Amino acid sequence: MCHHCVIEGVKKDMLSRRAFFRGTVAAAGAAALGAAAAPQPLFAQQSMPTKAEDLTHELYDTFPTYFGAQQLFYDQKFNHAEHTFNLFELRLNEHTGTHIDAPLHFTADGKSVAELPVEDLVAPLVVVDIRPKASENADAQVTPDDLKAWTDANGDIPEGAVVAMLSGWGDHVATDKFRNVGDDGKTMHFPGFHVEAAQALMEGPSVKAIAVDTLSLDFGMSPDFIVHNTWLPSGRYGIEAIANLDRLPASGATIVVGAPKIRGGTGGPARIFAMV
Amino acid sequence: MCHHCVIEGVKKDMLSRRAFFRGTVAAAGAAALGAAAAPQPLFAQQSMPTKAEDLTHELYDTFPTYFGAQQLFYDQKFNHAEHTFNLFELRLNEHTGTHIDAPLHFTADGKSVAELPVEDLVAPLVVVDIRPKASENADAQVTPDDLKAWTDANGDIPEGAVVAMLSGWGDHVATDKFRNVGDDGKTMHFPGFHVEAAQALMEGPSVKAIAVDTLSLDFGMSPDFIVHNTWLPSGRYGIEAIANLDRLPASGATIVVGAPKIRGGTGGPARIFAMV
Ligand SMILES: [Zn+2]
Ligand SMILES: [Zn+2]
Repeated sequence: MCHHCVIEGVKKDMLSRRAFFRGTVAAAGAAALGAAAAPQPLFAQQSMPTKAEDLTHELYDTFPTYFGAQQLFYDQKFNHAEHTFNLFELRLNEHTGTHIDAPLHFTADGKSVAELPVEDLVAPLVVVDIRPKASENADAQVTPDDLKAWTDANGDIPEGAVVAMLSGWGDHVATDKFRNVGDDGKTMHFPGFHVEAAQALMEGPSVKAIAVDTLSLDFGMSPDFIVHNTWLPSGRYGIEAIANLDRLPASGATIVVGAPKIRGGTGGPARIFAMV
Repeated sequence: MCHHCVIEGVKKDMLSRRAFFRGTVAAAGAAALGAAAAPQPLFAQQSMPTKAEDLTHELYDTFPTYFGAQQLFYDQKFNHAEHTFNLFELRLNEHTGTHIDAPLHFTADGKSVAELPVEDLVAPLVVVDIRPKASENADAQVTPDDLKAWTDANGDIPEGAVVAMLSGWGDHVATDKFRNVGDDGKTMHFPGFHVEAAQALMEGPSVKAIAVDTLSLDFGMSPDFIVHNTWLPSGRYGIEAIANLDRLPASGATIVVGAPKIRGGTGGPARIFAMV
């Protein structure tokens, strides 16, 4: 089989499998045929953004955690009355509050949070709204059908997007329903990505991250972190406990992910904005 | 004295004192006369930004600190070989690496880092280049004359700006010269803002923050944190150990400050970008 035929075969296979990525396929095809790729615009908007929305929950010592135990502790080392200034030392689990999962979180030696390229931290934001089904079923997941519904309504998923689940769970952040432990006293019930949706998004080379407004990329009752184990080893990152997605359009916002730049970090609390 | 005369008197006083803020004075005058203020643009650029520069140093356990002692400690709680994932607990002084000083840092009860309005975290960035004098004198400070030189070259300081000192000290971050302890074995020598420059910037109501590429808003040999004690109680914030200002234009970039949103925090390591 000649080199050209291999490329054509790959392209056909891509075309059949990547219904979500018509733009990507066109670009990949052009690249395969030797055309120069067009430069990526930094912002998703057609016109200048006029507002920054805060996609970050305030973090405090008893912020709900995946494992249930407290993950942030304050130690005041200096106080204004005595020392003329205030200063805390914090003890902090990386995976607390609105935070990043770097590939290193679920790989032996993948990229740390400090190694994520800056280009991956500014991206078009896709908001997949599953609130109707999540309000009826706490075990709801983002499926390929939900992605299809998004593309049917909004067109192709943009090049280099961050794809976020809006389940409505952010409204429960200060209550027990954020973890939503079931009758067995341990299994949690909150929405997340289905692994088939993660796989569909991985077939397009350009999606940078997935984001959830819950405590885990996997839904709460997952026994095996299958989405973490599928998504993060691909070199992409995740965002957990993102806030305020309900203030955004389904398409057209730009996310700016202020991920901490801690050497060797597996993630960490981030400050995240959307430019709209 | 009639109400109109009071306003005129205030305006004249402002005009004489605020040479740096011609735009601000005009806006304030218009507001005093009852005209609606124009909405602030979110970005400083006239056209859409095309690149994000990272203004953040990578943070690691022995990153140089103001007090000299180590301020970041890693404790690996889970490792991939044993637990299928990696996770660290960090012990971290808030004022480490590229970080924020919130008003609460030098006040009894000023705004915490989580209380800084989002509007203050996206701003036109003014880069005041004092590298020529700082390379000759490690005790150099940003003075009102340096601000005058900037406005002479670039026009008014934009509404709501963050004003940053580029001393060139970022080049020394991995060496002893970042702290630059003198012959007495304790006094540090690195550039910072002169209190008169801070005061001049405070006379315009719209400057949101000052930033330095060194370990302190005050120059290293300051005995009294006079700039901290002047600037932060005004409700404005500071940025210390900012990186890569040399990649930016003197005017026209937009800074996006990914300040941590930790309740009651006096500051904290931030991820900072410039959109250019
Ligand atoms: Zn996580
Ligand atoms: Zn500080």
